[in-house]
Amino acid sequence: APALAMAQSSVTIYGLLDTGLVHTTNVNAAGDSVTKMPSLTGSFPSRIGFRGAEDLGGGLQAIFTLETGLGVDTGGMGQNRLFGRQASVGLKGSFGEIAFGRQINMTYLATQKSDVMGPNLFSISSIDLYLPNARSDNSIFYFGRFNDVVAGATYSTGRDTSAAGGPAGTNCPGEVAGNAKACRQVTGLLGYETKPFGVTASYDILYGNTGAANGLSSSDNSDKRLTLNGYVMVGAGRIGGGVVDRSTRAATGLQESDLYYLGVSYPVHPLLTLDTQVARKNVKGSDADATLLVARLTYYLSKRTAIHGSLGRMKNSGASAIALDAGGTVGVGKTQNGVVAGLRHSF
Amino acid sequence: APALAMAQSSVTIYGLLDTGLVHTTNVNAAGDSVTKMPSLTGSFPSRIGFRGAEDLGGGLQAIFTLETGLGVDTGGMGQNRLFGRQASVGLKGSFGEIAFGRQINMTYLATQKSDVMGPNLFSISSIDLYLPNARSDNSIFYFGRFNDVVAGATYSTGRDTSAAGGPAGTNCPGEVAGNAKACRQVTGLLGYETKPFGVTASYDILYGNTGAANGLSSSDNSDKRLTLNGYVMVGAGRIGGGVVDRSTRAATGLQESDLYYLGVSYPVHPLLTLDTQVARKNVKGSDADATLLVARLTYYLSKRTAIHGSLGRMKNSGASAIALDAGGTVGVGKTQNGVVAGLRHSF
Amino acid sequence: APALAMAQSSVTIYGLLDTGLVHTTNVNAAGDSVTKMPSLTGSFPSRIGFRGAEDLGGGLQAIFTLETGLGVDTGGMGQNRLFGRQASVGLKGSFGEIAFGRQINMTYLATQKSDVMGPNLFSISSIDLYLPNARSDNSIFYFGRFNDVVAGATYSTGRDTSAAGGPAGTNCPGEVAGNAKACRQVTGLLGYETKPFGVTASYDILYGNTGAANGLSSSDNSDKRLTLNGYVMVGAGRIGGGVVDRSTRAATGLQESDLYYLGVSYPVHPLLTLDTQVARKNVKGSDADATLLVARLTYYLSKRTAIHGSLGRMKNSGASAIALDAGGTVGVGKTQNGVVAGLRHSF
Repeated sequence: APALAMAQSSVTIYGLLDTGLVHTTNVNAAGDSVTKMPSLTGSFPSRIGFRGAEDLGGGLQAIFTLETGLGVDTGGMGQNRLFGRQASVGLKGSFGEIAFGRQINMTYLATQKSDVMGPNLFSISSIDLYLPNARSDNSIFYFGRFNDVVAGATYSTGRDTSAAGGPAGTNCPGEVAGNAKACRQVTGLLGYETKPFGVTASYDILYGNTGAANGLSSSDNSDKRLTLNGYVMVGAGRIGGGVVDRSTRAATGLQESDLYYLGVSYPVHPLLTLDTQVARKNVKGSDADATLLVARLTYYLSKRTAIHGSLGRMKNSGASAIALDAGGTVGVGKTQNGVVAGLRHSF
Repeated sequence: APALAMAQSSVTIYGLLDTGLVHTTNVNAAGDSVTKMPSLTGSFPSRIGFRGAEDLGGGLQAIFTLETGLGVDTGGMGQNRLFGRQASVGLKGSFGEIAFGRQINMTYLATQKSDVMGPNLFSISSIDLYLPNARSDNSIFYFGRFNDVVAGATYSTGRDTSAAGGPAGTNCPGEVAGNAKACRQVTGLLGYETKPFGVTASYDILYGNTGAANGLSSSDNSDKRLTLNGYVMVGAGRIGGGVVDRSTRAATGLQESDLYYLGVSYPVHPLLTLDTQVARKNVKGSDADATLLVARLTYYLSKRTAIHGSLGRMKNSGASAIALDAGGTVGVGKTQNGVVAGLRHSF
Repeated sequence: APALAMAQSSVTIYGLLDTGLVHTTNVNAAGDSVTKMPSLTGSFPSRIGFRGAEDLGGGLQAIFTLETGLGVDTGGMGQNRLFGRQASVGLKGSFGEIAFGRQINMTYLATQKSDVMGPNLFSISSIDLYLPNARSDNSIFYFGRFNDVVAGATYSTGRDTSAAGGPAGTNCPGEVAGNAKACRQVTGLLGYETKPFGVTASYDILYGNTGAANGLSSSDNSDKRLTLNGYVMVGAGRIGGGVVDRSTRAATGLQESDLYYLGVSYPVHPLLTLDTQVARKNVKGSDADATLLVARLTYYLSKRTAIHGSLGRMKNSGASAIALDAGGTVGVGKTQNGVVAGLRHSF
C-alpha cells in the first residue's frame, strides 16, 4: 500500500517571492513608456534557498547555505548560475562565523540597516547595480559580533566566474598562475550597532584581468568602494543614510563618484509602513549626475505576506542615463517617473 | 555531538518522474527506426516543485509555486529555465485565485478533463506542441470556480523570454517601449463542470515581434487558438473530446487548421486503466493532414506509482511530417508506428 | 494570522558541501604556482539531492533520486545540467534494483571500496577524469546483492547529451535512427564483498559518433575500461588497490594505458583518519607516464562534519601533462606538488 512518509532532514527550505507590475516613462530617446513585470526585484529580490546548522558541541556549529536567485516573471535563475545568491559552508561559534564559497561580501552588509529602501525596484541599487550584487566567488568570509561592535571581511581568489554579462557576470574568474592580483577582491566592515542608533563603514576593492567587464581589462585596473552608513530611531521611525564613495581605475582612466542617500521608514499603522528616500549620485568632473526620489507603502497581510507600491523619480543630468528601475532603461539626460505595485510572500 | 534535526518549513516538495523506452518507425526519409529513452514526457512530463500556502484569515490565502521541468533521461532542466513549468505568487480566496509570474494559461487548463490521454508521449501534444507548453511569462492569472461554472483568464506583457528554441523558447520577451502589442498574450476560459459531464471553451491569442520564432516576426503577426472540449461519464468510463481551432497570421500569410480529438478512459480492473484516443489535424487548403491513433494501459502499483505502455500510429498525408512522439522526427508523408513502456512515480 | 506549517512530504533532501583552498606548483610551462578555491571537488564533490522511496508491498519499493552537482566556489551547477549527478526512477526488491534515467554506471561503483582516496581533489580522478564522472544518460541500470556476491549492469541508448565540453559534456546524445551503435554504452560489474575483504571487476565500453569529444568522432570509435579492484582489512585499517585497463579506439588510432593504484586508510584516532595512496599511469608505447603520491588527514568534528588536508605530488614523464588536482593544469613533463585544506559538511 502507498505510504506518505514525513521527510526527515536537517535542511530548511526558505524563500521569498516578490513581483507585480511596473510602469516607467521616458525609457528611450523617443520618450516612450513601458509597462512590464519586474524581473530583478520587487521590494526584495526573489529567491529560494536551503540552509542548515549542525551543533558540534562547545558552542560550535557547522552551517551551510545554498540560495538561488530567480525571476518570478520568467522562471529563470538569477546571477547566471544555480546558487547565485549564496553557496557556502562554514563554522560558527563565539568567535563569529567563517565560511567558504560564493557569498555576500561586506559592501552587501554595510547598508542593510541604514538604507530603508533596501533592494527595492526603485532604490540606490538602480544607481549602483553592484550594491545588491555585492557577492564574491571563491571567497573566505568572516563576520563577528562582539557586544555592539560588528566586524567582518572577505577575501576572494577570483571574484566572478560568470561571463554572461551584467552585474553578476563580469568575467573575472581569476586564480591565474603567476598573477596574484588578477580578479582578487578584498572587503572589510566595521560597525557599532545598538537598537537606537548605529554606524557602519566598509571598504571594497576588486581587481580586473584580461577580458573582465566594466573596463577592468587588466589586473592593474580596480574598482574601489568606501561606504559610511548610519541610522537612528526616532520613536517608531527609522532615519537612515549614508554615502558610497567610488573610485574606478579602468583602462580609460580614473573615474570618481559619490552616491549619497537619506531615508525615513515609519509605521503609519501596525499593518502599514511608509518608506521614503532621496539619493544623489555625483560624478566628479562631470555633470552626468542623477537624483532619485522614491516613496513606498507596504501593507502587511501577515508577517510573511505584504502588498507594496512605490512611486519614484530619477532625474538625469548631462549625459547621465540611469534608469529608475533596476535593470531598466532611460533616455540619455531624461527624467524618468515610475510606479510599481507588487505582492511579496516569504516562506 | 551531531544532531539530526527535523526541518521546519512551510514548503511542500512534490514531483513526478516518468520515463522508460520508446521505439518508433520511419523516423527519417530512409524509413529507419529508433529506440530511445523519452525526454519530454512519458505518460506525464517529469517535474519537481516547491509550493506553499499561508492562511491570511478571512478565507484568504497567500500561495506560491516554483516548478521545475526536467528530463529524467539526461538530468537536464526543461523549458530552458530553472522553474520552467511554473514560477508564481498569488492570493486565493472565495473570489478565486489571482497570481503573478510565469504560469500555465487557459489553453493548458481547457483540455484537462476532456483529453483522456493528457500529455502522453503519443498524444495530441505531438500534433500541437504548444498544448503541453501553454504557459505565459510575465503574466497575471485569474481562475475562479463558482458552483459548477469555471472561468479564468491570463494577460501577459511578454509571453516567452527564452530564445533557446523549441515550444518553450520562442524568443518573444516583449515589454517593448512604445509597442503595447509586441509579444502580448491573452487567454480566457469559460466552462461548466459537473461530475457526470462538462464542457469548456477557451480563447488564446499571442503576438509576435522582431526575432520571434514560428514566423511571428512582427507584432502584427499572431497565433490564435480557440478550443471547445467536453466529457461525459458512462458508468466508470469517461468519454472526452474536443477541437482546437488555430489561425496563424505569420509573415508568410494566414494558415488555418483544426485539431479534433476523441477518447475513452476505462478502468478495466481496479488497478488497470485502458485509455484510447483518435485525433485528426486538418490544415485548411492543404492535404498536409495527420491522423493519430493511440491506446494506453496503466497498471497501478500504488496510487503514486504505475507502469504504463502505449501503442500508437501517426498517419501523415501530403507534406505532413508530424512525429508520433513529442519531440521526435518522422519522414515526410510517412506513417509512423510506435510503442512506449514506462514507469511513473509521483511524490 | 500567519501560520508556520510543517512540510509533509515523501522526499528527503540530502547533500554534501566540501571546499577550501588549494595551492599547486608548476601549473604552466613557466613554472608558476597558483592558489585557488577548488571547484570540482574537495575530499568529495559537492551536491544537493532529493530522494524518496515508497513501499509498494511484498518487499517492492518505488525509488527515485534527483541529485545536483555544484561548485561551492561559484554557486554553479556541475556536469553542465541541473541534475547532473543523478536523475532516476526505479523499482527495488529482493531481485535488486532497476532504474531508468541519467545515472552512475558500474565503473563508478567498481572502485568505491578499494580506492581509499575516492574522488579527492588529489586522487586517481585527476589521472582519469572519467572515473568520478562515470555516468550514463538514457540508461537502464541494474544492481543486485546476493549474500556476498554483487552484480550489476547498465545499458545506454545515448551516453552524454551535453555538448558543453569536459568529462560530463562529451556531445554524444546518440539515439540515432539506423545506427544502433552510435553513442551506446554498456557497463557491467561482478564482485565478491565481505567485511574483511572483497574483489570487484568491471567492464565499460562506450561508443562515439559524429561530433563526439575525445576523438570518438565515429560510431566505430570506442573507449573501453576494464577494472579489477580489491580491499582487505588489517585491524582497523583498510588496504585497497586496483588497476584500470583502458583501450581507446579513436579516429587517430588505438591508445592503451594502465592505471594502477594502491592505498591505505587508517584511523590513527577515533576522530582522525590518515589515508595514503600511490598510483601510476602507464601509456603503452610511450614514456608519457605519470606517478601520483597523496596523503590525507581527516579530522571529524562530528559524523557529518570534518576538516581535511591533503599533500600530493604528480610526477609527469615525457609529454605527460596530468595535473595533480582535478580540473587543474600543469606544465608538460613537470612534477607538480600541491596542498589542499578544506571543510566538509553533509546533511
